[in-house]
Amino acid sequence: MAETNVVVLDFWPSSYGMRVKIALAEKGISYECKQEEFQAKSSLLLEMNPVHKMIPVLIHNGKPISESLNIVQYIDEAWNHKPSLLPSHPYKRSQARFWGDYIDKNVYNAVKRVWTGKGKEEEEWKKQLIECLKTLEDELGDKAYFGGEDFGYVDVALVPFTSWFYTVETCGKLSIEEECPKLVAWAKRCMQKESVATSLPHPHQIYAFALQYKHSHGL
Amino acid sequence: MAETNVVVLDFWPSSYGMRVKIALAEKGISYECKQEEFQAKSSLLLEMNPVHKMIPVLIHNGKPISESLNIVQYIDEAWNHKPSLLPSHPYKRSQARFWGDYIDKNVYNAVKRVWTGKGKEEEEWKKQLIECLKTLEDELGDKAYFGGEDFGYVDVALVPFTSWFYTVETCGKLSIEEECPKLVAWAKRCMQKESVATSLPHPHQIYAFALQYKHSHGL
Repeated sequence: MAETNVVVLDFWPSSYGMRVKIALAEKGISYECKQEEFQAKSSLLLEMNPVHKMIPVLIHNGKPISESLNIVQYIDEAWNHKPSLLPSHPYKRSQARFWGDYIDKNVYNAVKRVWTGKGKEEEEWKKQLIECLKTLEDELGDKAYFGGEDFGYVDVALVPFTSWFYTVETCGKLSIEEECPKLVAWAKRCMQKESVATSLPHPHQIYAFALQYKHSHGL
Repeated sequence: MAETNVVVLDFWPSSYGMRVKIALAEKGISYECKQEEFQAKSSLLLEMNPVHKMIPVLIHNGKPISESLNIVQYIDEAWNHKPSLLPSHPYKRSQARFWGDYIDKNVYNAVKRVWTGKGKEEEEWKKQLIECLKTLEDELGDKAYFGGEDFGYVDVALVPFTSWFYTVETCGKLSIEEECPKLVAWAKRCMQKESVATSLPHPHQIYAFALQYKHSHGL
């Protein structure tokens, strides 16, 4: 029996689940990934995350950890060998957490509203999404990654959403690359990392899922 | 000139601002507290928190940190002498962060909706607030503090909201003590700590502020 038992409760199109898979891959941790059904929550999920009943959950030697950025921080602390995802200096750590929190509060909602939205409301959300991505692009600046030379916490927090860009662009009839060329270049740079490439589904798979979702929700 | 210069941008009835003041008091850090006006944001605030333009902001030797729980973690890491607010073990840290996040996502909104609400909507929010406080009470259990024997991160995150309980109870015509006796006993225990007692306004001051707010917003 392996000394360490790591299970991820996941739903494959979830950007939050992708964060956990990238962080584990960065640390070189092997794990079992259990896919949840779209609308039926497993008894394991209900047992492991009774408060939110949501994926992702990391189960490490039987103990559950929930909320994706909390899980990423846990992975960084529990397997504290290199590469570190969070910087070591308190101020830089606080800035990384600030941007992780900014992404959590803004990106998912805007992305979803664009690909599920219609008419005026969709236009408003497109503006908000672009504004939010431009804020992130400003923070990135000319750095290779958000933390500087090395791929880290903020990259893990944001890059999964780029697998939804094709869906957003197709449904919303916009070009993120035109609006945010540096951010798209950053996303391509991240995709050259094996940890990211193996954790993100193909954008066409996401798009097929989105179309099916819209159809089944009458959108 | 002091070696360390610490400024807090605050608005006194804000539970988020109280968190920062408690954390600084726990570490024995002296600071200058600058009160923001209710509806006019200072140029210093706009400069120090350009993304959210919201208090609290901690300015440590000229460098700003935003988002209250992020600030509390920064304080714990930058002044890493005892008492530690977060536990040292990665799993326990993840659980503390989970509950801090739970409080952020649920308590403020439910508290505000109860004291500003009316009719059916208010009744619904009263139910949600009590449900949320009972979830927290279950997590507290028979422990002295959320982390066990010692006052820590989750206590810092939650206790400021107890200064709003009188307002919630008076406006919402409910008794939190009847619903959550252990949680109210915990709040009284926290108030015996100087760091908490000196950082929380008197509940009657909060109530007077709430009445004024409701009046000026036609509620």
